[in-house]
Amino acid sequence: MRGLFITFEGPEGAGKTTIIQKVAKEMENGGIDVVLTREPGGIQISEQIRQVILDPANTAMDARTEALLYAAARRQHLVEKVIPALKKGAIVLCDRFIDSSLAYQGHARGLGMDEVLSINQFAIQELMPDKTLYFDIEPEIGLKRIEAHTGREVNRLDLEKVTFHHKVREGYKILLERFPERITSIDASASLHTVYEETVAIIEKLLVKKAN
Amino acid sequence: MRGLFITFEGPEGAGKTTIIQKVAKEMENGGIDVVLTREPGGIQISEQIRQVILDPANTAMDARTEALLYAAARRQHLVEKVIPALKKGAIVLCDRFIDSSLAYQGHARGLGMDEVLSINQFAIQELMPDKTLYFDIEPEIGLKRIEAHTGREVNRLDLEKVTFHHKVREGYKILLERFPERITSIDASASLHTVYEETVAIIEKLLVKKAN
Repeated sequence: MRGLFITFEGPEGAGKTTIIQKVAKEMENGGIDVVLTREPGGIQISEQIRQVILDPANTAMDARTEALLYAAARRQHLVEKVIPALKKGAIVLCDRFIDSSLAYQGHARGLGMDEVLSINQFAIQELMPDKTLYFDIEPEIGLKRIEAHTGREVNRLDLEKVTFHHKVREGYKILLERFPERITSIDASASLHTVYEETVAIIEKLLVKKAN
Repeated sequence: MRGLFITFEGPEGAGKTTIIQKVAKEMENGGIDVVLTREPGGIQISEQIRQVILDPANTAMDARTEALLYAAARRQHLVEKVIPALKKGAIVLCDRFIDSSLAYQGHARGLGMDEVLSINQFAIQELMPDKTLYFDIEPEIGLKRIEAHTGREVNRLDLEKVTFHHKVREGYKILLERFPERITSIDASASLHTVYEETVAIIEKLLVKKAN
């Protein structure tokens, strides 16, 4: 693999998706071969799997079934989109990857991190990301940002979400301790500009290291 | 769980499906609460997953994606159909289960038995079958039976299949050594009547043991 595989992680409201798009655009402008993606990423089989997961009629969906389906969609997206891009030397930026499953399903939903890790290791084999950027933010602040963005008031469901997102954040903290080399935490409570600058600095360092 | 979970395994041409139907009918006639099933078994989510696996347009399907999808369909079928039946005390007869994945995908297709076992253990948790009947037959004999059944001649694809089915059989032999308590091998080259009698004898013993 000649390319570089970088994943972006964190809760909604952390600015992750805005940042990744800005970074991709900037790299493209700089003449770098960059592929911005997120599962299912237009891959037919992964899209079909996602449809099964999201089908509103599938209320009986078991949490383990869902975790296996996410792992299956991940595998196919990896095989058809990420690996070919890495082989031709591209920098692949992926919005959410294995750590989302570990934090959300493994930890917050209580399936167990090691168990969710084991099915995901089957799915991705040796292809762990070269670097993972985790955009860390207090759930309350993330929620307020989403509200400002969508212009609606806080409701009961949002508050339940806050409790849930505290569990998700706890999950990410465990991952940071477990994979200190791979995952770098970025304080996403700072201004978008500051977060963006920090992100670019980390990626530039990776590119320099790769070139040498 | 008050019921009994019995799975039937083996290649095509071993008579497995004929036997399981005869056994289910006989038990029903005897007033036993029996559920005959096979994945995806009419379970909506599992049927949808199976459609993704079998979609002829999905030629790019990776072997690991497929294995994860089979495990997902298995999980949902187990949760929605097998577990409720076992809870109400039924005898569940399942045509193919985890050992098919281990023998076909794990061993014959070369994904690795331990790896395929790990994703399936995630799917079924502690719910391994109480008993598995393996219908053993030389692939050449199984093939001849299918031919006699369908009335067509042997072709190149069939011969390739024979090589593949030798690998599958090898996989089942490994499983027999690995799970000697759970799996019982039945010589399926004998007459249908003999194979049926042997099957019934094993199941009767299980029922007696369960009643005591």
